[in-house]
This record gives sequence, C-alpha cells and structure tokens, in this order.
Amino acid sequence: MPRYKLTIEYDGTPFCGWQRQDNALSVQEVLERAVFAFSGDETRVGGAGRTDAGVHARGQVAHVDLSREWPEDTVRDAINAQSRPHPVAVLSAERVADDFDARFSAHKRHYEYVIIDRRPPLTLETERAWQVPRRLDVEAMHAAAQHLVGKHDFTTFRAAECQSNSPEKTLDRLDVSRAGEAVVIRASARSFLHHQVRSISGSLKLVGEEKWSAADLNAALEAKDRSRCGALAPSCGLYLVRVDYP
Amino acid sequence: MPRYKLTIEYDGTPFCGWQRQDNALSVQEVLERAVFAFSGDETRVGGAGRTDAGVHARGQVAHVDLSREWPEDTVRDAINAQSRPHPVAVLSAERVADDFDARFSAHKRHYEYVIIDRRPPLTLETERAWQVPRRLDVEAMHAAAQHLVGKHDFTTFRAAECQSNSPEKTLDRLDVSRAGEAVVIRASARSFLHHQVRSISGSLKLVGEEKWSAADLNAALEAKDRSRCGALAPSCGLYLVRVDYP
Repeated sequence: MPRYKLTIEYDGTPFCGWQRQDNALSVQEVLERAVFAFSGDETRVGGAGRTDAGVHARGQVAHVDLSREWPEDTVRDAINAQSRPHPVAVLSAERVADDFDARFSAHKRHYEYVIIDRRPPLTLETERAWQVPRRLDVEAMHAAAQHLVGKHDFTTFRAAECQSNSPEKTLDRLDVSRAGEAVVIRASARSFLHHQVRSISGSLKLVGEEKWSAADLNAALEAKDRSRCGALAPSCGLYLVRVDYP
Repeated sequence: MPRYKLTIEYDGTPFCGWQRQDNALSVQEVLERAVFAFSGDETRVGGAGRTDAGVHARGQVAHVDLSREWPEDTVRDAINAQSRPHPVAVLSAERVADDFDARFSAHKRHYEYVIIDRRPPLTLETERAWQVPRRLDVEAMHAAAQHLVGKHDFTTFRAAECQSNSPEKTLDRLDVSRAGEAVVIRASARSFLHHQVRSISGSLKLVGEEKWSAADLNAALEAKDRSRCGALAPSCGLYLVRVDYP
C-alpha cells in the first residue's frame, strides 16, 4: 500500500474539528470521503494535530495509504476536486516511506494565535482572529512569555479532558509580535497538551491588557492548577501552521 | 447639522455594492439604517467610492450629517452596534467642516487587487482573493504596468455602463509585487473609471501568465477599444484601501 504525506490547509469554522465524530462533520471525514470518491479506497487519513472545532490550519500534515500508486499531483488534485465545496485544500501530496506517521514521526509543531486589538468589530477577519477591544502591550506579552519557554509542568494550561500521559512539555518557542492591528503569538514544540496554546494565549492577553504582570503568569504556571489559567482564547484565532519531520 | 467623516471597512461579499438599490442590500443602506437607529436621523451616507458587489473596503470614506453633535467615539460605536450582524465596521468617526464631501473632496484613491496564484483551491482566503492556478511572472507584470501610469484614454479598461464624462484618467501608481502566494496590484489615482482596476488587473494577469507581452498591453491601451481588454478580474480580489484628502 503506497503511503502519501498530505499537507493540508483548512478553514476550521464549519467543522467539529480535525477528528471524525458521529454527529458532526470533521476535516478528517471530508478527506476520507474524498479519497474514497477518487480511489475507491476506504482508508483512514491520520493527522499530525487533532485541531479543535473552529481551529484553522495552514499546514496540517496527514498520511494516507492508497491501494495503488498514483502520481503525487494526481492525488492532490483529485482529493481537492472531491472535497468541494468544503473549505479544505491539499497543498501537496508526497509519496513517503511506509513507516512515515504524520502524528508519531513529527518532531516539531508550529502554531500561531492571532489577536486583532481594536475597538471596531471585525469584518474581513471575522472567524479568523480574536478581536479584543483594548490595545495590547506586545512587549510585555513577549517578555512574560519567555518564562514559559523550556520544559515545564503545564497543568495550568491544559484542558480537563486532555489525554496526554504527562502534563510536562517542552516549549521551544513562544514569541509575541505585532503586525499592524494583529498581535501574533507563535508557539513551537514537539507536542502540545490539549488547549495549551489557547490557554497560554488567553493568559498572555491578560498580560497585554496589564491585568496580569509577568510574575502573575509565572505564578499561574508554578501553581499547576487549571483554575489559575486565564480564560481560554477562542478557537477562531488559532492556526496550525507547520509540522516538521526529520 | 454637524458633519462627520467615517472611515469604513467591509466584507463586500454579501452586498450588492456600496450604493443603495431597491432589491438588494448595500453597504450604504446598512449604514443609513444604523445612523437612523441610533440618532433618529433619516440621512444620506455619501461614500468616496461606489464599490461594486463583492468588492471589499479597508478604508472607504463617507460623510454624514447628524441633527445634533455627538462625541466622535459615540458616533463610531453606535453605528457599529446598530450595523450588526452585517460585516461593516466604522473604524473612525471625525467631526469635519460642513464643506467636506467624501466624494468630491477626495484627491487620491488607493485600491489593491489580490491574486493568489496556486493550484489548490482557496480555503481561508475564499472570497478574499482571485485564485489563479498558474504561477505569475510578477516582474513582467510590474514592468508592463508602468506603460499605464500617467494620463491616458482608458476606454479599453472601462465598463460599458461607466458614467464618467471622460475616459481620460491619470494613474499615479500601478505597482505589482509578491508576498508569498499573494500577488498584489496597487493602483492609485485621483479617480477611476468604472471597472478600471478590475479591467487592468485582468489584463495584467494575462501578462503574468505570459499570454500577453508588455507590448500587447500597450497596444490594448492604445486601441481605446473595450473588446481589447483582458477578461474582467472578479470582484472578490478588489479592496478600496484608502482615500486621501487635502
């Protein structure tokens, strides 16, 4: 069974998330149906990151086994043709070794969280960013964020339903920068806990609003207590932008 | 009657355009209804550019006369509150002199046309850009565009229904540049003919695809013949980004 690596972009708004569910449409189901429609193969499309409902991707990665060999561009174009009109696009399809696993072979995941800090409501960026009415102090956010970089017990920034064996994760990068009205939080790690980026982003927003100091953020981390987390940032601001493999 | 200058952003997708029409919803009608809802004033909101159906704005400008004086931020926030859930936002409201006219006082208008040149369909940028499957030669587009800068008879790049008295316009700037997958055409002039930017963008796309040379574009201009124009670029790629006043 030839295996293909798919790099995928999607607008998460209409989906219940990446992962298949019984009563709602997922990105995974759109792709699995599209693969079946073009190849006749009933097969699983396994993703690197199980993004939540409303979370977007610019570079989700998945792998799929097909029963016969197809040219890479044919796989990409055929899945795209069969995925219409859903907002899911395969950016590239590559033939990979049989032991490539989108989830387990990944050695780094990169997320971006986008906040637009302005008083007027969003129009062109609706469902693409978190609108907060107050101008954020991006330098303070970035400085405070550096306390979270490295290996820590991230219990404070973890969903109750998180299935990870351990709350310990190593955050390789947590940068906050401004591009016009947009404040972008960039987080990179081998893997993340459930809701980790949105939990951290919600807490960093409090720093940006001067409601929390850097010390408050650090104390929240040290407390290892979910109730000390800032309010979860909404899913529409989160993007899975890239997954790295060896 | 105190006059206010409004700077306005909108997603043009659900609208029949800027201008009021009997059978479809316009941006102008949303704003006029919102002004009425907060102030009780039945008044006209006059815009600088009458954008077509599907065309977006990041910096449309309009003026409106209110029967009493309100703080500028109150005008902005009240119109925004009353415009929901339509994707129209007043970015700022400023008290201006009674002779300020959004349309006639404008001395420069700036438009951007966004093309995304990639084979996979758009997801996050659906209705925000024109997707063309072939990689465009941006340098060739920019070089060819320079022939259109300056004062010309733009009959070739003018809609049949254009109401301008003269087909002569002075194009101050026509730049083409790339930012990742996006090819952005930036056009600036005191005023434009109806469909001028979309007509030029459709023709420049042919240059980018190497279907037209710079000489072909120039010959089309010189012909002063609408039938020599490249296919009109779709409205979803066009943004009115700024209007300048003395």
